Amino acid sequence: MKIIIIGGKGLIGRSVVDLLKSNHEILVASRNNADILVDISDPSSIEDMYKKHKNVDAVIVTTGKVHFAPFDQISLQDYQFSIENKLLCQINVVTIGKRFLNDSGSFTLTSGILNRDPIESGSAAAMVNGGLDAFTKAAAIEMPRGLRINCVSPTVITEGLSNYGDYFKGYRSIDAKICALYYQKSVEGLQTGQVFNAE
Amino acid sequence: MKIIIIGGKGLIGRSVVDLLKSNHEILVASRNNADILVDISDPSSIEDMYKKHKNVDAVIVTTGKVHFAPFDQISLQDYQFSIENKLLCQINVVTIGKRFLNDSGSFTLTSGILNRDPIESGSAAAMVNGGLDAFTKAAAIEMPRGLRINCVSPTVITEGLSNYGDYFKGYRSIDAKICALYYQKSVEGLQTGQVFNAE
Repeated sequence: MKIIIIGGKGLIGRSVVDLLKSNHEILVASRNNADILVDISDPSSIEDMYKKHKNVDAVIVTTGKVHFAPFDQISLQDYQFSIENKLLCQINVVTIGKRFLNDSGSFTLTSGILNRDPIESGSAAAMVNGGLDAFTKAAAIEMPRGLRINCVSPTVITEGLSNYGDYFKGYRSIDAKICALYYQKSVEGLQTGQVFNAE
Repeated sequence: MKIIIIGGKGLIGRSVVDLLKSNHEILVASRNNADILVDISDPSSIEDMYKKHKNVDAVIVTTGKVHFAPFDQISLQDYQFSIENKLLCQINVVTIGKRFLNDSGSFTLTSGILNRDPIESGSAAAMVNGGLDAFTKAAAIEMPRGLRINCVSPTVITEGLSNYGDYFKGYRSIDAKICALYYQKSVEGLQTGQVFNAE
């Protein structure tokens, strides 16, 4: 298959690339220094990506930013930022891309554990993840041309514990290469509308 | 208790008022012709409401607009509209209100069935509902001063079938007065972080 991995230079993205590259044609997409330069916060940049790179079978998104802040300090703008930079930009990759992907192609999004297992400072992340999981389930039943959509919802990644471990006290981490398996299942399997809890 | 019901003139809101008015002081809030005039899409209007009406024990939100459209026609703006008019405005009622409510007060939000049981044209509604359910669960663990937060997630309301029945084919409706019970449970009970499936 021809697969675009948006965020393919990140912790999870690199592991997905490593797992899939031997059997597929992989195009890594990122804001800079990648096979495809794209800014998914800009719908016109997403559309340009699809117009330049045709006959794509699968799009994986492993990127998205949310704002972490204690609930007594978090602002309305922090929720808006998190929506724009993780929820809406992933949804835009799907709603624009559904016109371009090959028949029976697939989208795989990335949410995260915090809506089902919340932490301090994680209310914006939880909200965004809940929205992504729900969008995945609802969009799946309306996908045209046999297109599929799933969402991987990872716990904290072992290789990221040095950066994020303080937020995830008591959480069991998984190695990035284990997390990558859920993306493979989404792309190479036939399920749709699923949230794969990678934990 | 002193209870503000935002959207108290709507189908669900009226039933909640009817159920609670005999035992509580009820203030109905709406954009016009209500005890409290408020536009919850405007954060400054929310703040004004709390500053004018003090010593509130519970805030119930039974209002919010989402855009329904088939997935092959829905636009990026439709998702943005739904976020602003149901997801973010309910979150703003909580994030602003947490400074004003009486100790041990409660917030009760309203999502809906479509994230767990999706329909055609409902992808924006599902996304918003998933975000509200998740926010509720995450915000609950960080609430100050014993404040609580729950979310009622109703199926289609019997009295609304003439307007919405075509969307909800095969869905079992509930009467508005049954739906109101879940709001009572949220306000008068002690649970927090719960999504009450009213179906």
